[in-house]
Amino acid sequence: MSQRKNILFIMCDQLRYDYLSCAGHKTLHTPNIDSLAERGVRFSNAYVQSPICGPSRMSTYTGRYPSNHGATANFVPLRVGELNIGDHLKPLGIRPVLVGKTHMIPDQEGMKRLGIEPASPIGVHHSQIGFEPYERDDGIHPDLVLKPNVAYNNYLKERGYDDHENPWHWAANSVERRGEIRSGFFNDVAQLPARVSEEDSETPYMTRRAMQFIEEDDGEKPWCLHLSYIKPHWPYIAPAPYNDMYSAADVQDVHRSETERENTNQLAQHFQERICGQTFSREEARETVIPAYMGLIKQIDDQLGILFEFMEKKDLMKSTMIVFTSDHGEYFGDHWMGDKDFFHDPAVKVPLIISDPDPSCDNTRGSVQNAPVEAIDLVPTFIEYAGGAVPKHILDGRSLMPLLQGNDVPWREFVVSEYDYFQQSFSPKTGRAPLECRIYMIKNDRWKYIHAPGFLPILFDLTNDPDEFVDLGNSDDHTDARQYMHYALADWSLQYRQRETVSEERAEQMVGLEDKFGVLIGYWNEEDVKPPATAPDFESGPKAH
Amino acid sequence: MSQRKNILFIMCDQLRYDYLSCAGHKTLHTPNIDSLAERGVRFSNAYVQSPICGPSRMSTYTGRYPSNHGATANFVPLRVGELNIGDHLKPLGIRPVLVGKTHMIPDQEGMKRLGIEPASPIGVHHSQIGFEPYERDDGIHPDLVLKPNVAYNNYLKERGYDDHENPWHWAANSVERRGEIRSGFFNDVAQLPARVSEEDSETPYMTRRAMQFIEEDDGEKPWCLHLSYIKPHWPYIAPAPYNDMYSAADVQDVHRSETERENTNQLAQHFQERICGQTFSREEARETVIPAYMGLIKQIDDQLGILFEFMEKKDLMKSTMIVFTSDHGEYFGDHWMGDKDFFHDPAVKVPLIISDPDPSCDNTRGSVQNAPVEAIDLVPTFIEYAGGAVPKHILDGRSLMPLLQGNDVPWREFVVSEYDYFQQSFSPKTGRAPLECRIYMIKNDRWKYIHAPGFLPILFDLTNDPDEFVDLGNSDDHTDARQYMHYALADWSLQYRQRETVSEERAEQMVGLEDKFGVLIGYWNEEDVKPPATAPDFESGPKAH
Repeated sequence: MSQRKNILFIMCDQLRYDYLSCAGHKTLHTPNIDSLAERGVRFSNAYVQSPICGPSRMSTYTGRYPSNHGATANFVPLRVGELNIGDHLKPLGIRPVLVGKTHMIPDQEGMKRLGIEPASPIGVHHSQIGFEPYERDDGIHPDLVLKPNVAYNNYLKERGYDDHENPWHWAANSVERRGEIRSGFFNDVAQLPARVSEEDSETPYMTRRAMQFIEEDDGEKPWCLHLSYIKPHWPYIAPAPYNDMYSAADVQDVHRSETERENTNQLAQHFQERICGQTFSREEARETVIPAYMGLIKQIDDQLGILFEFMEKKDLMKSTMIVFTSDHGEYFGDHWMGDKDFFHDPAVKVPLIISDPDPSCDNTRGSVQNAPVEAIDLVPTFIEYAGGAVPKHILDGRSLMPLLQGNDVPWREFVVSEYDYFQQSFSPKTGRAPLECRIYMIKNDRWKYIHAPGFLPILFDLTNDPDEFVDLGNSDDHTDARQYMHYALADWSLQYRQRETVSEERAEQMVGLEDKFGVLIGYWNEEDVKPPATAPDFESGPKAH
Repeated sequence: MSQRKNILFIMCDQLRYDYLSCAGHKTLHTPNIDSLAERGVRFSNAYVQSPICGPSRMSTYTGRYPSNHGATANFVPLRVGELNIGDHLKPLGIRPVLVGKTHMIPDQEGMKRLGIEPASPIGVHHSQIGFEPYERDDGIHPDLVLKPNVAYNNYLKERGYDDHENPWHWAANSVERRGEIRSGFFNDVAQLPARVSEEDSETPYMTRRAMQFIEEDDGEKPWCLHLSYIKPHWPYIAPAPYNDMYSAADVQDVHRSETERENTNQLAQHFQERICGQTFSREEARETVIPAYMGLIKQIDDQLGILFEFMEKKDLMKSTMIVFTSDHGEYFGDHWMGDKDFFHDPAVKVPLIISDPDPSCDNTRGSVQNAPVEAIDLVPTFIEYAGGAVPKHILDGRSLMPLLQGNDVPWREFVVSEYDYFQQSFSPKTGRAPLECRIYMIKNDRWKYIHAPGFLPILFDLTNDPDEFVDLGNSDDHTDARQYMHYALADWSLQYRQRETVSEERAEQMVGLEDKFGVLIGYWNEEDVKPPATAPDFESGPKAH
């Protein structure tokens, strides 16, 4: 048996927290994911730091909130120099490897300014956010911005799907209807099978690529394999038989209230009015699309069954922490919204299961942990799992290892998530400049408070309104609650999160530093002072000669 | 006459806002600095972003608040990749040159991580915070951490001050008393002359270095010459005759109240109890030290007279913007405090005079501008002066050019300053971890509000208590005022200040970006959508093939 402590870090895209049987879904059965929960801990209060792919993932891979790492929206490059998962894991001897999506946009201008060649090892380290890109595929390849040599496209062409330049779109994410090929971006065809076979669809392809990596791995270093599926993200097209596995009868009730469309917060109304909100407010759309979405999840579960069996045969299950999560959810008409991008639970809450085979975690297996956790907690968790020390001056998250080991530790009260809506088509209507298009969510067990400068706040009383139907943002009876949450948001925001060059340990050594250097400030004469005999040695401070 | 538009950016260190005759000092005459104010605008409400050298200067040279650039305390390295004054001015064809102090601590770890050689052009650019170091001298050279080859030390040795390895300390900043050499760090000798001649003391030396640069300049590019004096910063030792030019009779009344020591805010009390607070709460110390401090300022004024005459002869006055300011003030016993580091006006308010010879500024010459301005406004001012566009997504400050030109523009309400007190010897007594040792000041015309997590706030009513004697931080009658200022602080903190990789202009082009890429989210069918004919070209987004 290998003594290496690996990490298999599985991420889905746009998977709601409640679309797993272990999380209570009534008609969707996910036995392989459920078995992982039985072997580990399921976190029932896990929140992403932004309800959209790019900033959420940048937070997950840096362990920092979006307003701290700066990549606050899709296609906003992550600043060069931001420490990433590779910066934290590589020094611990771990090999971080990617199969699938990261959504990382490199900082080309920053690299140029600092003389970093994008193709150099440091350039690749930045551009791949610390992962070795065994297979990088961000999954969405619209024709207008298709990159050359997408490996999956090359694979599909080799497999005979060569009637179009972009078989990702026109085979894997399109259907045939009445003899015509039709893009899966249109939701009315979600019930039809994808033009690819199940074997050639995205999820099995990526699962095989993960197994290929494991086969080829030289066994020298423990790895952190990020298997990052694009599915069940739209286009909501599943291959046969998954397209036809579920029907309208399997769709759970929509989660919305008429009151949500009356006296709506103006910003929430902008989100409701988006095309995706309009589409999924119609039952026809829900009944057409959600079965396909469920099929895509079922396919992931089946593929994970294959992967876990493969790992079992390789005797890797005893030495591998397995993490299963998503980068955000999907509204599907809940709260009269579609897609994600806002802060109701269907969008901002995610599934999170962690199974650590170490005996220290034996007494939590199969348990559900209700503590509020955040996606930024994963990097610190991996660091502690690998025996490292968590750098608090850099990482905003906390290691989940104590929770996995069942240790009683003081925990956080609040989770925070952010959204930068400047790219939304409605943003010019708000009259706000791009840097002002910000929304913050802060929640504790009692309240969810959503603050967007320029708009009324939104407040949900989670004890009396767990459905998040009644906005108390303008209620005279809740001024204290709003102030409490606003002050908590201010506390969160007023933390020092860019002071990254001095660790806590180093900072403690720097107390009274000027005195230690022999800089004597404000002393009247010798009676006031006893200078130290020798100077401390600080690498970055002035040097003794 | 040269058509180059130069900038002479003069900074003093630890110069109070009220120690100039143009600012109302009754016994200290500074005719050369006053003449600059007559030729330009004196800003009577100028605040630094931290009341201590390092973070204040990092803010001035980056145009960003300390909690945004991260170098929140002395000796905390500025992260590599932070854009500096050189990044902003060099592309405009300006040559930024340093004579004197910056207090920049390079990010050695960051440079190593990004493969940047410290001695390479990019390494020097970072390490010198964008200035070409014609003469870098941070001014304070205690024996215990003396660097080799300090140019000023070499100069002093050549001039015969060679009885000690460190003549900066033992000649320029020491005195002879009863035949013994005594360190100027002790304040009881401040009335005695420095062991160097006036000619060889620091201020004339640096002034000559500035003139040497101007002589040697090849005339190709306009320059931004940062003449950054260490004085009147301690050690408070002036050469003859400046040591003896003022006496106790010239010292202005101390600015404090007995009420300030009763029921003192606990954090303010820590600052009062520091040795510098104890020393300067004694009249003997004030009467001994302040005359020497005034002498050091008088010497700067005289040297500026020489420099301005030199520039006049070189015909540079008509083509050079001249800025005069300081990095913070000094308490000298006001409010029972010494040195700086806290937020009463003597510490956090600074002199600021800007003279732009351009005719567009003719109608403001000799005026006093009361608008609240911040040290972070200088970099944007220089950018606009040089004809550039101010990058709002990077810079926190605003160009002062409209105020210099007398244009009526909407202006800010609040100024903000910060202090990271983890290095203070008292910090362990607070029981707070280093990252939690934060103080924020926010002020408008009416209120100054000081927020430090873990302590009661401090509030001054500047209308009814312009002296800042009465702390209303615990007053039942001022809950609304405190809440108003706390919300304003939260607004300030909740800005997106790390989203530096996308300009406002670029952001506006990115509205509706996914639709533009042909990513169609939430559409039911073709009736819902009109896709664009061509894809936009975004350098950092996905590429068209």
